[in-house]
Amino acid sequence: MKPWLVEVYQSLHQYPELSGQEFGTCRRIKSFLTENGIVPDENFAEPAVVAMLRGIMGDHVVALRADMDALPIRENSGVPFSSHHEGIMHACGHDAHVAMLLGAARLLQARQSELPGHVRLIFQPSEEKHPGGALALIEQGVLESPPVEAIFGQHVQTHIPVGKLGIMSGPFMAASDDFTIRIIGCSCHAAHPEQGIDAIVIAAQVILALQSIVSRNTDPVQPIVLSVSTIEGGKKTNIVADCVTMRGTLRTLSEEVRARTKERMQHIVGAVAVGNGGEGEIDFEPGYPVVYNDPDLSAQVKASAAAVLGEKNVFAIAHPTMGGEDFSRYQQHCPGVYTNLGCGNAAAGISAPIHTEKFRIDLDCLPLGAALLAQQAWDYLCSL
Amino acid sequence: MKPWLVEVYQSLHQYPELSGQEFGTCRRIKSFLTENGIVPDENFAEPAVVAMLRGIMGDHVVALRADMDALPIRENSGVPFSSHHEGIMHACGHDAHVAMLLGAARLLQARQSELPGHVRLIFQPSEEKHPGGALALIEQGVLESPPVEAIFGQHVQTHIPVGKLGIMSGPFMAASDDFTIRIIGCSCHAAHPEQGIDAIVIAAQVILALQSIVSRNTDPVQPIVLSVSTIEGGKKTNIVADCVTMRGTLRTLSEEVRARTKERMQHIVGAVAVGNGGEGEIDFEPGYPVVYNDPDLSAQVKASAAAVLGEKNVFAIAHPTMGGEDFSRYQQHCPGVYTNLGCGNAAAGISAPIHTEKFRIDLDCLPLGAALLAQQAWDYLCSL
Amino acid sequence: MKPWLVEVYQSLHQYPELSGQEFGTCRRIKSFLTENGIVPDENFAEPAVVAMLRGIMGDHVVALRADMDALPIRENSGVPFSSHHEGIMHACGHDAHVAMLLGAARLLQARQSELPGHVRLIFQPSEEKHPGGALALIEQGVLESPPVEAIFGQHVQTHIPVGKLGIMSGPFMAASDDFTIRIIGCSCHAAHPEQGIDAIVIAAQVILALQSIVSRNTDPVQPIVLSVSTIEGGKKTNIVADCVTMRGTLRTLSEEVRARTKERMQHIVGAVAVGNGGEGEIDFEPGYPVVYNDPDLSAQVKASAAAVLGEKNVFAIAHPTMGGEDFSRYQQHCPGVYTNLGCGNAAAGISAPIHTEKFRIDLDCLPLGAALLAQQAWDYLCSL
Amino acid sequence: MKPWLVEVYQSLHQYPELSGQEFGTCRRIKSFLTENGIVPDENFAEPAVVAMLRGIMGDHVVALRADMDALPIRENSGVPFSSHHEGIMHACGHDAHVAMLLGAARLLQARQSELPGHVRLIFQPSEEKHPGGALALIEQGVLESPPVEAIFGQHVQTHIPVGKLGIMSGPFMAASDDFTIRIIGCSCHAAHPEQGIDAIVIAAQVILALQSIVSRNTDPVQPIVLSVSTIEGGKKTNIVADCVTMRGTLRTLSEEVRARTKERMQHIVGAVAVGNGGEGEIDFEPGYPVVYNDPDLSAQVKASAAAVLGEKNVFAIAHPTMGGEDFSRYQQHCPGVYTNLGCGNAAAGISAPIHTEKFRIDLDCLPLGAALLAQQAWDYLCSL
Repeated sequence: MKPWLVEVYQSLHQYPELSGQEFGTCRRIKSFLTENGIVPDENFAEPAVVAMLRGIMGDHVVALRADMDALPIRENSGVPFSSHHEGIMHACGHDAHVAMLLGAARLLQARQSELPGHVRLIFQPSEEKHPGGALALIEQGVLESPPVEAIFGQHVQTHIPVGKLGIMSGPFMAASDDFTIRIIGCSCHAAHPEQGIDAIVIAAQVILALQSIVSRNTDPVQPIVLSVSTIEGGKKTNIVADCVTMRGTLRTLSEEVRARTKERMQHIVGAVAVGNGGEGEIDFEPGYPVVYNDPDLSAQVKASAAAVLGEKNVFAIAHPTMGGEDFSRYQQHCPGVYTNLGCGNAAAGISAPIHTEKFRIDLDCLPLGAALLAQQAWDYLCSL
Repeated sequence: MKPWLVEVYQSLHQYPELSGQEFGTCRRIKSFLTENGIVPDENFAEPAVVAMLRGIMGDHVVALRADMDALPIRENSGVPFSSHHEGIMHACGHDAHVAMLLGAARLLQARQSELPGHVRLIFQPSEEKHPGGALALIEQGVLESPPVEAIFGQHVQTHIPVGKLGIMSGPFMAASDDFTIRIIGCSCHAAHPEQGIDAIVIAAQVILALQSIVSRNTDPVQPIVLSVSTIEGGKKTNIVADCVTMRGTLRTLSEEVRARTKERMQHIVGAVAVGNGGEGEIDFEPGYPVVYNDPDLSAQVKASAAAVLGEKNVFAIAHPTMGGEDFSRYQQHCPGVYTNLGCGNAAAGISAPIHTEKFRIDLDCLPLGAALLAQQAWDYLCSL
Repeated sequence: MKPWLVEVYQSLHQYPELSGQEFGTCRRIKSFLTENGIVPDENFAEPAVVAMLRGIMGDHVVALRADMDALPIRENSGVPFSSHHEGIMHACGHDAHVAMLLGAARLLQARQSELPGHVRLIFQPSEEKHPGGALALIEQGVLESPPVEAIFGQHVQTHIPVGKLGIMSGPFMAASDDFTIRIIGCSCHAAHPEQGIDAIVIAAQVILALQSIVSRNTDPVQPIVLSVSTIEGGKKTNIVADCVTMRGTLRTLSEEVRARTKERMQHIVGAVAVGNGGEGEIDFEPGYPVVYNDPDLSAQVKASAAAVLGEKNVFAIAHPTMGGEDFSRYQQHCPGVYTNLGCGNAAAGISAPIHTEKFRIDLDCLPLGAALLAQQAWDYLCSL
Repeated sequence: MKPWLVEVYQSLHQYPELSGQEFGTCRRIKSFLTENGIVPDENFAEPAVVAMLRGIMGDHVVALRADMDALPIRENSGVPFSSHHEGIMHACGHDAHVAMLLGAARLLQARQSELPGHVRLIFQPSEEKHPGGALALIEQGVLESPPVEAIFGQHVQTHIPVGKLGIMSGPFMAASDDFTIRIIGCSCHAAHPEQGIDAIVIAAQVILALQSIVSRNTDPVQPIVLSVSTIEGGKKTNIVADCVTMRGTLRTLSEEVRARTKERMQHIVGAVAVGNGGEGEIDFEPGYPVVYNDPDLSAQVKASAAAVLGEKNVFAIAHPTMGGEDFSRYQQHCPGVYTNLGCGNAAAGISAPIHTEKFRIDLDCLPLGAALLAQQAWDYLCSL
């Protein structure tokens, strides 16, 4: 099946589309599905493609998910099938994810008569852009009727050699929340600072106090990032600043840490500002939840992967990552496992990380990724 | 002479001009001088007017100075002779200063045959705008040939009742220095803060460390203002900020404090940044020096003012002001005294401070201001 | 009178006594008074001596005050009449103050028949030790029956040449308030900081926030000192500190600044602690109020001093001092003036500052100090 | 064997000894060994007991280690065999560790004729007290002649139910380093702060800057604790503090993080102090290294444990602990695995944590612990 998968992959790679604009990609996916005898479910609005691969036995449903959006990066990967869309590039490998899911669909379809349940195929748009495409699909019922009982997905990584799969049980990718802090003081002439409230001095205190949430208020074994990433305040050198606005990001791997941190941030911003005679406000713009890989399901995926790749090619990822992924949206409704699939090949010079203009994959990962998804679905349904 | 002074004042008030653009004002001043038999000195480029009122005896020279620029404020004072120049207003009383100096010139001219020396009249542009008009005039020789031995000036204030003059011996108005601090860190993805250097956290430490220069490194009886007035840094919530730029102002009343503070600021910015793995730079844009009223000359001005206003209407100003004034430029070359003249009248509702759209003066201050300047020049020349 | 004054001074210098223990000093003072025909007022408890020098005309009362305690310093001044009390020394010149007041009493007594009022002589103990001896004397009625209308005092200073007197009108010496801040957190094992509240990190934030009261919340022309002078907290390296105690001093020259600063301190300590999950408390132990020299009375003292020392030997002190003095207690009940009298003589090697083991005075200051006090009292009574 | 183990355990529990004073314990251990036919190695000084259990085949050596010191805690556990040593208690379960190692020795001794190698038994003193007893034993050659190739140890925990064993591959327990920071300023009178350098304000800045090492300079997935745990400085309220001493602890799970953090601390302390005009010094007192469980050996221990306890009773510990253990000293010379053995029984009320006066164990853990150690040694030797 590799030649077909490569062709599918390359056709997707040449026509990347930004988050929320994956209409051409959807057309291609639907075409590939129908030419393999799989009928897309027209209940889901584009740019998304959903299909149900119905087995002959049982009512159980498992889902496989691929994301499909590209990035605003000018491709400089040197591959002959480079992007035809100026300034847009499949630099995150979502084209490979789509191809692998199409391949898995073909593999499962080929054994449909033995399939002990149903497999829902989810080609999701807009993973790169908040609030993410998963939310809308879930609201449209992608995990219902009949209810999806487990979901699998994977991401290609060049730092993992092709042929290997990394799994992490438990919290794997971070929840991210953006925040905006406003410190409100009172302006006055710089010659009379006592007539105003210096918002910049308050902001400095708040910034340093926030560091102590990480260093003092969080269990040391719980990863956390709290970055005040932008700051802006004041107008003229001879005017005491009346307002400072700070924006930043919070990344956590546990809902408990996430909630406690938000509460501590609110406390600090409010109290430090008031203590200095000003006012402080903080707003959160919630991002993706934690990608949490169900431990039992992770063990099953490990076994499925060992069957495909050989036991020695399946490894436990040592640390979670502070990056985020809206695969976590599905995991809030049913258990799921998200894995990292090797697509790198140092000997062949394939090592540029995702989100860079040089990113490319070892094409051998395509049939392996397809087989892995199919095996995970198959084994899951068989286990019920 | 009051009717003439009022007419002069009102004509100036109606046609305010911004700093460096006082060409119409110069034309008017020259016209008033020549109609009083005083010939402007054509060696000084407009927008400035300089004239020498030559006495019959001695070689001594004393200078009287008025500033003449207006502000970018839309007048809302309610006076019938409001500004004809949209969005520009004599909201700092420089029109009154000019009228008073013209009045003083008339008074001295009338007694020219007894004048024991010469009086240089300086109508200076651009007091409100760095680096100030005084510097260019001094470079053009306004204090030379023959050398000016003393200089007097005054500013109207509505918080002082008309009829009163405030004098402060010694440091009276602050030196101001603007500064720009740049903290250079290193950006990285917010999920991996350890791969960068967070310039915002360094900036916060620098801001708080700078506060201690005022609270710990400065003699408590020496007034000082150190304001970080603007701050800007960082680009996106998911990127650690690589640079923060802060601007502010330093105001001091002693050269020793000024120099020590600049040195301490440099130390703190550099060391705190380096200690945190980044770099820090600070540049100063020097402003006006300290207005320092010569103590002996201040005693003389006090006597002259008592002769004009009565002893009980001359008072010692208790505290210096952290505002600046480029009259100090002249004082770096010869002793001088700068005073605050009452132009307020609470009973008549004249109390809006300078630099506000409602500012106006009690016109009775005009002949008093003229008489004070004339008396100061006369008494000074007589004392030699 | 100088030989007698020197004898009195030397006898006092040899037997210095610590604050509240000036019983021997009282005995000596009473002896000197009675041998000059002045009867001590037995209504005031030792260690204090009060006497009323009654004139023949009028009911007005003026008071003259000397303090009389010594310091726990081992004398090393080299004078032949050094301290006989091991480890105790009149290193603050209070012995000179007493001698001068005794001299003033003799001078006034000699002209009792012309004295247009009464003079209360106050020999006060315990100026060096909070809450100061003035408070108890005032409570015992030293300013009443008949009411004292003005009070004068002076302090010797070696940095002023003998023969000169420095006067400052208005706020002259600082109010001092000691404070104790307690930050209460919650201890826990250092391996689990999130289970406690780190009082040391909160204390650090509080210390830096307090600096901004001086740098941002106080009029730059108003002198202020806010020192956190001691800090103590935590028990073991592997336990997060549950409590930090900080002590310090606040010194101000205006009741408004004093009150506002205390309020700001309370706000900061409370809010910063609460914002970080702990608790903060601050207690003030009020010290002496501001020594405030009544401006009209200061002008009168200036004239009296000029009569004694010559006009050129009376100067205006440029800046207030942040040191304190419980002469201010009397000034809260009646106007008063406290001056600095020269006792230094650089040519004769008399320059060691007060409160040092080398401190000594030029004995010529004794008759001048006596004459100044007498003149001030005389002139005041004559002016009524 | 349980009755014998219980008897051994109870006899040890009744006579606890503090770190470095385990002489009675040694005597008991030697007696138990010899009565089982094992001869202590007299090359190792008391308080330590080492013995070599020699198999009949091969030259390979594996080591089993138990620690044996007690804590200065007054026992209040309610067991009938409570401590006879007032104020000393086996509150950390080291008595159980000793009993289990004795049990393992008996088990292995019983099958000595089949043992494919040698087993070194290490009863180590002073685990609770820096620098720990392991160091001296290693220096005396406990891992040499012939060289020990692997080492196993375990700690009882009441939060794990009896019958279960927790294993963590990789970094498992933290390295700990104590540090002392000295900030040197310059004292002066509090009324003249500009004449000194305030060490307390510098210390506050250092404390807050140190927080950013955790929050900004450390990979979020790398656990770290940096606690400033004690602070002390300054003498009197009216003296600016000239010195502040701070002590604390650093705990890390990676040598790279440990080294980088120490370097960053040195940078911050030095630079922040110098930038504020003072000096800063930091000294480290290194503690135990990281307990690092060799991954391959961990897998083997997991299999051995499954053979003893059943697979479902062996679990992977999710997070490392920030506590320390000098078992890590051995691991710097040969691979080793340290595990956590369940001794709790919530139903029976056995749940008080170690290091508390109520701590006690479910005695069923004793034969399991003995069997686990024996199995680990056996399986290791068989695997070579």
